[in-house]
Amino acid sequence: MAMTMTQKILAAHAGVESVKPGQLIKVKLDLVLGNDITTPVAIKEFDKIGVKKVFDKKKIAIVPDHFTPNKDIKSAEQCKCTREFACKMEIENYFEIGQMGIEHALIPEKGLAVCGDVIIGADSHTCTYGALGAFSTGIGSTDMGAGMATGEAWFKVPEAIKFVLKGKMAPWVSGKDVILHIIGMIGVDGALYKSMEYTGEGLKNLSMDDRFTMANMAIEAGAKNGIFEVDDKTIEYVKEHSNREYTVYTADEDAEYSRVIEIDLSSIRPTVAFPHLPENTRTIDEVGEVFIDQVVIGSCTNGRIEDLRAAAKVFKGNKVNKKVRAIIFPATQKIYLEALREGLLEIFIEAGAVVSTPTCGPCLGGHMGILAKGERAIATTNRNFVGRMGHPESEVYLASPAVAAASAITGKISSPEEVAK
Amino acid sequence: MAMTMTQKILAAHAGVESVKPGQLIKVKLDLVLGNDITTPVAIKEFDKIGVKKVFDKKKIAIVPDHFTPNKDIKSAEQCKCTREFACKMEIENYFEIGQMGIEHALIPEKGLAVCGDVIIGADSHTCTYGALGAFSTGIGSTDMGAGMATGEAWFKVPEAIKFVLKGKMAPWVSGKDVILHIIGMIGVDGALYKSMEYTGEGLKNLSMDDRFTMANMAIEAGAKNGIFEVDDKTIEYVKEHSNREYTVYTADEDAEYSRVIEIDLSSIRPTVAFPHLPENTRTIDEVGEVFIDQVVIGSCTNGRIEDLRAAAKVFKGNKVNKKVRAIIFPATQKIYLEALREGLLEIFIEAGAVVSTPTCGPCLGGHMGILAKGERAIATTNRNFVGRMGHPESEVYLASPAVAAASAITGKISSPEEVAK
Repeated sequence: MAMTMTQKILAAHAGVESVKPGQLIKVKLDLVLGNDITTPVAIKEFDKIGVKKVFDKKKIAIVPDHFTPNKDIKSAEQCKCTREFACKMEIENYFEIGQMGIEHALIPEKGLAVCGDVIIGADSHTCTYGALGAFSTGIGSTDMGAGMATGEAWFKVPEAIKFVLKGKMAPWVSGKDVILHIIGMIGVDGALYKSMEYTGEGLKNLSMDDRFTMANMAIEAGAKNGIFEVDDKTIEYVKEHSNREYTVYTADEDAEYSRVIEIDLSSIRPTVAFPHLPENTRTIDEVGEVFIDQVVIGSCTNGRIEDLRAAAKVFKGNKVNKKVRAIIFPATQKIYLEALREGLLEIFIEAGAVVSTPTCGPCLGGHMGILAKGERAIATTNRNFVGRMGHPESEVYLASPAVAAASAITGKISSPEEVAK
Repeated sequence: MAMTMTQKILAAHAGVESVKPGQLIKVKLDLVLGNDITTPVAIKEFDKIGVKKVFDKKKIAIVPDHFTPNKDIKSAEQCKCTREFACKMEIENYFEIGQMGIEHALIPEKGLAVCGDVIIGADSHTCTYGALGAFSTGIGSTDMGAGMATGEAWFKVPEAIKFVLKGKMAPWVSGKDVILHIIGMIGVDGALYKSMEYTGEGLKNLSMDDRFTMANMAIEAGAKNGIFEVDDKTIEYVKEHSNREYTVYTADEDAEYSRVIEIDLSSIRPTVAFPHLPENTRTIDEVGEVFIDQVVIGSCTNGRIEDLRAAAKVFKGNKVNKKVRAIIFPATQKIYLEALREGLLEIFIEAGAVVSTPTCGPCLGGHMGILAKGERAIATTNRNFVGRMGHPESEVYLASPAVAAASAITGKISSPEEVAK
């Protein structure tokens, strides 16, 4: 039977010739991932199963990135529990503060995700690694516990939506604008339990960082996963970051899709999602006058080096508006160092932004930039639900790093075209 | 009547010829300071007084440094209240995230404290500005509220202890070691409601940053204030940072002191204060084997450029121990930028430390590095009381940046002499 990329990866990991949408299958896992919030819960589930060892100490990654550096005693205790488990189980990919960063930026950087992998993570944005042509998806802590014990997980094979990309994005348009445009088009349940599969000649115009951002937000359209066809850029990235063997799965030409959507990248404008759903999108031209109190640039969605470069291009020679707090979070220590060496951090500080340690921080209302009642933020993060970044009466607008940086300078949501010098 | 430096400053600001210890006087204030924790309380007191304006919008400084970038909704609301008050009162020295840093590093840097000033601040470490030959002391939020309304405060004139410094510190010994040595000698109530007045030929061997650190910790010996005789270094610092006029007050030769203590700087060894009091000091040679989980370098005590330089000298070419979280907090944005340009931040990140935005953070158990039960930190901060940095069963050891950095590398409290390459 003809299969999509996702279906082929799942079939191979289930040890069967083919699978079809709706089928329940058990697949072997290449990586089981957890963070400081979800791992303690997963450990309890793991303990209930009663095995003494994890299935493979090389195939588990634990990244305490959410409330770290420890926000409070509770988060300190969660990290301690996680650290002690990692030590007892001799988990090789436990990453301590100073060696790490936000999980979904760190895992590809450390070569722990490659084309053809099946990865589960107890964090909804685990779908990020689809950028590498892997099947990766967020699961709950119970599945993480079971995954650590058995190395396997059950899935219902998803239907797919095919996105055929063509053309090339205009200056100041990035992967973030493309995915916001798509979510605006199909809605936050537009891909419910489906795989979003990206292909087409426009692919070559998307950098790996664009693809990570787009795969990362698949969950915001309700998708099971997002996945990109593997091309030379993917292979180059994988070879640069990993020594592991990888397999490239290509969709059959006659694979069935529940929907095929053509996206002309050249037609996309910088796009902003208004409160309180990622589907409430407007192009920058339709935004009107929206004053903001805070700007957040970073997160697993947009804290990579290209994101910081785009923001720096806008900040350079400009000053952050006096009424705005601009907070920048490089996603990993490696990205932080790269940004430092390229002079990006200097541009941020000179402009009057602050640069934090890598952490999920304010994205999920964790710490390092929480909003008071009535405050508004524009953020490069992934969710703008009610109260996501603080008070239930605060607001979050989602955008690209370039738009966020431009807004930091003017004090209202603005286009980088107006601001960059 | 013969007077000490402190007494002379107080007399001049009370508009009287002379004062004597124990006398109650009302003095005019050159600066009233508050932060994000204390200002909201002070605003309530200010409102009770019923005046509509602050006494002088140039002589109030508000620095939201403790739980910022906002740790949670509560701290966001506190900052919002503070910001709105500053805006309404047109307070000129309100500093927003990105323009600021830790108050006691920021105020001298911004030229808001000069020789001869009387400064009150609703934060116990306001005594820091004594390094500049000013009288400055921590007060409660009620006094801050009254001070903002009237520009005056009541004081009981303190007795003084005279510290006569001689000699020169050995390499790797800093102002932090000197003040820990002194507190170890006289105890945490050794200077209760007294002024600690520093003089002697050894003064010239203390940098301004050494003096800030020493004045900062006067409160840890119970003192009302710490104050340094003004010399060429002081004048140079003041002229570099401020256009304000200043007055140099020198102690009368026959001024009375409750105690005179001679300190031979050359005899001081790197010093560590064990839990749970700053007076529990041991020299580095007496420490024994104390393993640590976290290292904190920063705070109003030791987050200045010389502190970061000392730490970088130790980190350079070394790696943070895998079991240790090393967190570095430059005290202000300016210091952050200076450290970045000097290559210090690169050394920290390469070594495996993380660098935070300027914030008080973990020093007071606020955020960004809270300890779990049973964990131990060595910190360049100022207090190691029970539960100061987190769980009541955690421990804090106080030391200099060089000792803290060395400990980060070995994983146990260590001398920089052993580690620096």
